[in-house]
Amino acid sequence: MQISAAALAQLIDATVEGDPEVIITGPARIEEAAAGQITFLANPAYEHHLYQTQATAVLVSREFKPKTAISPTLLRVDNVYETVSELLQVYQRDRVSQTPRQVSQHACVADSASLGEEVRIGKFTVVSEGATIGAGTVVQDQVFIGPNVRIGSNCLIYPGARVLRDCVIGNDCVLHANVVIGADGFGFLPDGEGNYRKVPQVGNVVIEDDVEIGSNTTIDRATMGATLIRRGVKLDNLIQIGHNVEVGANTVMAAQAGVAGSTKIGANCRIGGQVGFAGHLTIADGTNLQAQAGVARHIREPNQALGGSPAFGYRDWIKSSILHTRLPELYKRIARLEKRLEE
Amino acid sequence: MQISAAALAQLIDATVEGDPEVIITGPARIEEAAAGQITFLANPAYEHHLYQTQATAVLVSREFKPKTAISPTLLRVDNVYETVSELLQVYQRDRVSQTPRQVSQHACVADSASLGEEVRIGKFTVVSEGATIGAGTVVQDQVFIGPNVRIGSNCLIYPGARVLRDCVIGNDCVLHANVVIGADGFGFLPDGEGNYRKVPQVGNVVIEDDVEIGSNTTIDRATMGATLIRRGVKLDNLIQIGHNVEVGANTVMAAQAGVAGSTKIGANCRIGGQVGFAGHLTIADGTNLQAQAGVARHIREPNQALGGSPAFGYRDWIKSSILHTRLPELYKRIARLEKRLEE
Amino acid sequence: MQISAAALAQLIDATVEGDPEVIITGPARIEEAAAGQITFLANPAYEHHLYQTQATAVLVSREFKPKTAISPTLLRVDNVYETVSELLQVYQRDRVSQTPRQVSQHACVADSASLGEEVRIGKFTVVSEGATIGAGTVVQDQVFIGPNVRIGSNCLIYPGARVLRDCVIGNDCVLHANVVIGADGFGFLPDGEGNYRKVPQVGNVVIEDDVEIGSNTTIDRATMGATLIRRGVKLDNLIQIGHNVEVGANTVMAAQAGVAGSTKIGANCRIGGQVGFAGHLTIADGTNLQAQAGVARHIREPNQALGGSPAFGYRDWIKSSILHTRLPELYKRIARLEKRLEE
Repeated sequence: MQISAAALAQLIDATVEGDPEVIITGPARIEEAAAGQITFLANPAYEHHLYQTQATAVLVSREFKPKTAISPTLLRVDNVYETVSELLQVYQRDRVSQTPRQVSQHACVADSASLGEEVRIGKFTVVSEGATIGAGTVVQDQVFIGPNVRIGSNCLIYPGARVLRDCVIGNDCVLHANVVIGADGFGFLPDGEGNYRKVPQVGNVVIEDDVEIGSNTTIDRATMGATLIRRGVKLDNLIQIGHNVEVGANTVMAAQAGVAGSTKIGANCRIGGQVGFAGHLTIADGTNLQAQAGVARHIREPNQALGGSPAFGYRDWIKSSILHTRLPELYKRIARLEKRLEE
Repeated sequence: MQISAAALAQLIDATVEGDPEVIITGPARIEEAAAGQITFLANPAYEHHLYQTQATAVLVSREFKPKTAISPTLLRVDNVYETVSELLQVYQRDRVSQTPRQVSQHACVADSASLGEEVRIGKFTVVSEGATIGAGTVVQDQVFIGPNVRIGSNCLIYPGARVLRDCVIGNDCVLHANVVIGADGFGFLPDGEGNYRKVPQVGNVVIEDDVEIGSNTTIDRATMGATLIRRGVKLDNLIQIGHNVEVGANTVMAAQAGVAGSTKIGANCRIGGQVGFAGHLTIADGTNLQAQAGVARHIREPNQALGGSPAFGYRDWIKSSILHTRLPELYKRIARLEKRLEE
Repeated sequence: MQISAAALAQLIDATVEGDPEVIITGPARIEEAAAGQITFLANPAYEHHLYQTQATAVLVSREFKPKTAISPTLLRVDNVYETVSELLQVYQRDRVSQTPRQVSQHACVADSASLGEEVRIGKFTVVSEGATIGAGTVVQDQVFIGPNVRIGSNCLIYPGARVLRDCVIGNDCVLHANVVIGADGFGFLPDGEGNYRKVPQVGNVVIEDDVEIGSNTTIDRATMGATLIRRGVKLDNLIQIGHNVEVGANTVMAAQAGVAGSTKIGANCRIGGQVGFAGHLTIADGTNLQAQAGVARHIREPNQALGGSPAFGYRDWIKSSILHTRLPELYKRIARLEKRLEE
């Protein structure tokens, strides 16, 4: 996309300082921006890059005052971070608008499936019997949509995603490549002789609106009832969500976290990478867990920050972690005390 | 499926108390059951739900006595948990019986592949040259079966699973969506100048009977010989099994656990989520590892429980974990002792 | 492949001791080798197997002296480990040479895509508009190559791998089954009312030459600019690489490690399994991290070994880990001291 600074300023509600006729080809970070690109300065720690950048234009705040004369055209806005996000949307919209809306002749769509208006179905994608896909949803190539799955409108489903029978996806959801929604929960009964018998998993997964699920993440179906992902949840890559788990609205979870069966995580939680939850727990709203924490007990009080495995209060965890590194010294001090008392 | 309480009671060997003619449409958990559904009461902690449930029928033990009159039809059985599993099987069998048995015209099956009776091959699935698939096995859509792979009878392979060349799968196995069996082991030799040269991985993976492998789990092929998964093993999602590993019979492993190359895990072990094993270890039968444990040494004595990273005895780990949270207090006490001795 | 000991000796530069006419069918480990196979003895701890092996031939060093007469033909070489790797290559080359070079009639290759000489495209694989694939690259079945992707020459891409739009792969790379290259980075802005708005991810992933990526590993595209995997990097299975991360040349990373956004890892690092890195860190060249370590701070000094979460010096971590198991004893000793002082 080629656009003048003046035209771009209109799209993102900016005022122009410098040449409004320069042509901008795309966005870049300030360390890397080349001629023709637009970059941004939000964090003062990066200001020195401004005086060396080859960028053609730079987003800055309305108040920002450069220390020396600079050559790029400045676009001044109220909130630089938010405008960067808008700016990226401009470039992405341009790209998305090129996507053709149609059902590929190389897809298999069951006669009994129902597709809304402007649905796209990609190559080698399977839409099984009884499935419903809402208007404007894009199902890319090599996706599997199982029997009786219901998917809302304006979703985006990337190659290799699998949504197995009976699962329900809301509107405006994004499923990244190779996610698996609705594999069997991990349920087995010991038979008393060391063998395990499978407990059939006849529930499903229900994902509400505006949820994003990262690549290769797995969300298991409930034994009975539903595994529930509430509206606005954002899951990163390679996350495991066990059967009958519930993840509360607007909770975000970083990569490789795992939640064992039947645990209920509250709303507005922030879960770090590689965090693990045992099963059958209740985690209060607003809980904030450090990366690699391990949670084996209920967290009843909302808005706590915790770290460690087993997890405890964040500040105490920091203190104990530091003291842990000093254990050898501690043992020496105790031995010295013991010796003095024996003298 | 619609079935009367009386007919269902026959299938699961229950005695009916209340109206035997009510029609039951499906199972549900007691907190969520609606009219028409059957639920169950096994754990006394859930008994209060019984007096409010809208369920049409409830499974209870033969001895159970309700505290007040209740409206659902009761089905009395010897072992509630086991019967729930049977009940779920009834509903699943109903569903599975609808699966057509055939080779999709959208699959690619090599001429030299051999399919047993009643094998189903799904859409966009590849069965490569020399592969053998046993009677009654269902290979769903978009699966890859590599050259010379041998798969037993009555297996169920979900969309996106990849079984690479020369690997062997037993009878009655389940491979969930997007599992990868037989990718190259992680073997490289440093060349003395900082670069790594690949060590070819020419072995395979051998999975015995009655094994279940969770979605997005990866099992690498051996450098030479076989990576071995013994009969009855159950692996959850997103697990990593390195090359030349052996997992003993009836061992169960929760999600996101990882086993480095050449480690031999015994039979009847229970491995928690996110547990990690270093390579070249021997782990005794019946070992029980807490979630997030890290195992860097052999475990020679059978039937031990361990936790922590590095892992040690479970009870000692619990004690040390609690004391770890009190390290700041400990340091103060030592400083106080030192001060008193100096006075 | 059937080859005489004499012919094999020529391929791997060995001298033959014993019958040069024996026919060798394949390699095996010394514990498992059967008649017709060749095995090797490098580690003296395995020497007792030599006197019982059924193998037809054994690789040994030029200096090795058996303690008793043995029946297998010996092939003597300078460096047994390196020769094993060469030997495995002989058998693998034999296998690879059987791969037909062609574009499957069951693939979808866009008219605007460009394929080099001797490229193979497998069944149900999609090569999107504007993609470029270099000479000799093998793209196996069910792979997705997105719009404008550029892939170098002599790469090997396994079934189910997804390389999304605009990403760049160098020469001689291997992508294992179900890897995802170029899914969106995990970028969201809170809107002040608890909801998150997606930050578009318009960058890409650039992978240099001679890189190997394990199965089900995910590498996210940059918000702007590129996520960079430098030449010679080897990533194991189920690894997460966040947006705008850089992994330095010849760094190797074991399974289930994770790197959060914008972290820069140096060259020649060795990262253990399940290690986690927080975002926006700089990790020096030659850093060596124990399995399950957690890195939350910059590592500025090169060639350090660290362990633990939070990570600190490897030797100190070992000491503190041992003392951690003795915390109950420590508390008792402190209580005893306190009591004595009160007396």
